[in-house]
Amino acid sequence: MDSIKIAHLSKSFGQQAVLTDINLTIEPQTIYGLLGRNGAGKSTLFNIISDRIPATSGEVVIEGQNNVNNDRVLNRIYLMGERNLYPSRMRVSDIFQTTAALYGRMDMDLVHQLSSQFGLNIRTRFAKLSTGYRSILKLIIGLAVDVDYVFFDEPTLGLDANHRELFYSALMDSYAKRPRTFVISTHLIEEIANMVERVLVLQEHHITIDETTEKVLNKGYSITGPTADVTAYTAGLNVIGHDQLGNLRVDYVYGQLNGSRPIPDTVSISHIDLQKLFVNLTSQEVATFEN
Amino acid sequence: MDSIKIAHLSKSFGQQAVLTDINLTIEPQTIYGLLGRNGAGKSTLFNIISDRIPATSGEVVIEGQNNVNNDRVLNRIYLMGERNLYPSRMRVSDIFQTTAALYGRMDMDLVHQLSSQFGLNIRTRFAKLSTGYRSILKLIIGLAVDVDYVFFDEPTLGLDANHRELFYSALMDSYAKRPRTFVISTHLIEEIANMVERVLVLQEHHITIDETTEKVLNKGYSITGPTADVTAYTAGLNVIGHDQLGNLRVDYVYGQLNGSRPIPDTVSISHIDLQKLFVNLTSQEVATFEN
Repeated sequence: MDSIKIAHLSKSFGQQAVLTDINLTIEPQTIYGLLGRNGAGKSTLFNIISDRIPATSGEVVIEGQNNVNNDRVLNRIYLMGERNLYPSRMRVSDIFQTTAALYGRMDMDLVHQLSSQFGLNIRTRFAKLSTGYRSILKLIIGLAVDVDYVFFDEPTLGLDANHRELFYSALMDSYAKRPRTFVISTHLIEEIANMVERVLVLQEHHITIDETTEKVLNKGYSITGPTADVTAYTAGLNVIGHDQLGNLRVDYVYGQLNGSRPIPDTVSISHIDLQKLFVNLTSQEVATFEN
Repeated sequence: MDSIKIAHLSKSFGQQAVLTDINLTIEPQTIYGLLGRNGAGKSTLFNIISDRIPATSGEVVIEGQNNVNNDRVLNRIYLMGERNLYPSRMRVSDIFQTTAALYGRMDMDLVHQLSSQFGLNIRTRFAKLSTGYRSILKLIIGLAVDVDYVFFDEPTLGLDANHRELFYSALMDSYAKRPRTFVISTHLIEEIANMVERVLVLQEHHITIDETTEKVLNKGYSITGPTADVTAYTAGLNVIGHDQLGNLRVDYVYGQLNGSRPIPDTVSISHIDLQKLFVNLTSQEVATFEN
């Protein structure tokens, strides 16, 4: 089983650059979190990898072969996208059958088990499903289809808290039984932080972070104390954001602290969670793209 | 300013009962959280209140008048719904203008300020907006339109963490300047727990909880310890769920503890957060409805 290699990939819509010179290797049997602001281009990246839209330049190589119009390798990946590609009058059961036929193999026992657990009535027509149940239909397919790479674009859109927990545990069960790669794009960062082995951050047209979750979390700090002491301590560090409450200040730092600088007694330092880290890393970013 | 009174409201789709004998008063100048599982009927309730669909029986009385076909009182409420009612080729700026004309008054300064803060390009056509930016467009209208009751159905659908924070703070600012009622239906329960004054839970066709957030939180407990000690302590209490890890057990209770029963030394009791409480209260529920 080979990796997916993305080389010098760029994409513009008209004058609007969305992705610029993306270089990225997606390894087999790994769970990734793809993080990015609204409009950062996450869906665009997924759509290019799965050859639903063309790149402007660069290429995607799956198991050694260019992906464009290449059914053999495209059949090894599945994208659960935002767009609803199903005919509105089609019934859920027919959508499962059609997808199974298209991909050659799908775990129909798992399909029926998950449909029952999520309360999805397979006799329902697609058009009648709420936003939450459209997500449920698509994530069941993503978990049951027999491919090496599954791309989940906002899989929990519209899902209630119980259904989100059910999805995360079903994904971990499925991964344990048949290890493969999942790339999950989500805005509910804290909820996936424990599952995700590697973090990708897409920001200002580039992949700015591609590291293990553990390393990313180890580089995030909050430094709290009286304003003057905090700013003196963090001078020269990579301060990515701050909060201020009266004379109390919190600076958020991503990267190395200065080991030789003494920590004032008035200042306390802790690690921060992944969502807090992401919010501060990307708070200045302006969306450049809305589709 | 008067309240909205919902009396003996029921709704079925064909044979399928969705809402059964709902009785509810929505008070002026109050922020509500409406919680319910996927398929519980939250959107149906909103759609009936705003007269987008008819009730099967019962009525909605707004400021003393029945709401059906009653433009005078319907003009005092705004529903930001899941459905996208805008022509796909219409530009964002034209959608703002049309809505302002329809409702008579809209805070256009706030519209432009929020559009800029959220990075929403008002020249974009509706069809080109991503899920996240469609939510942003609709929540800007919901905050800027001059009405007494605003119903937000999943306002943060597809929004990144930074945009969600921006929405919550814009809502609190707007409420402080011009107190009015917001009813927010969301699956991101913990994120709204601090804003919401009253909690409504819609469950198995009924409103099962209608209380202040403070009271609801005061009634939720986790009881943790060795299995035998925990189950002995919680016997007869309203146990809504449990977790088990080896011989360690957590029982979740909603309601009164037994004040006269001694607490074993091996057992610890704490309050739980709103999302945990909701997940346990509603975990047995089966969805009956998918639209």
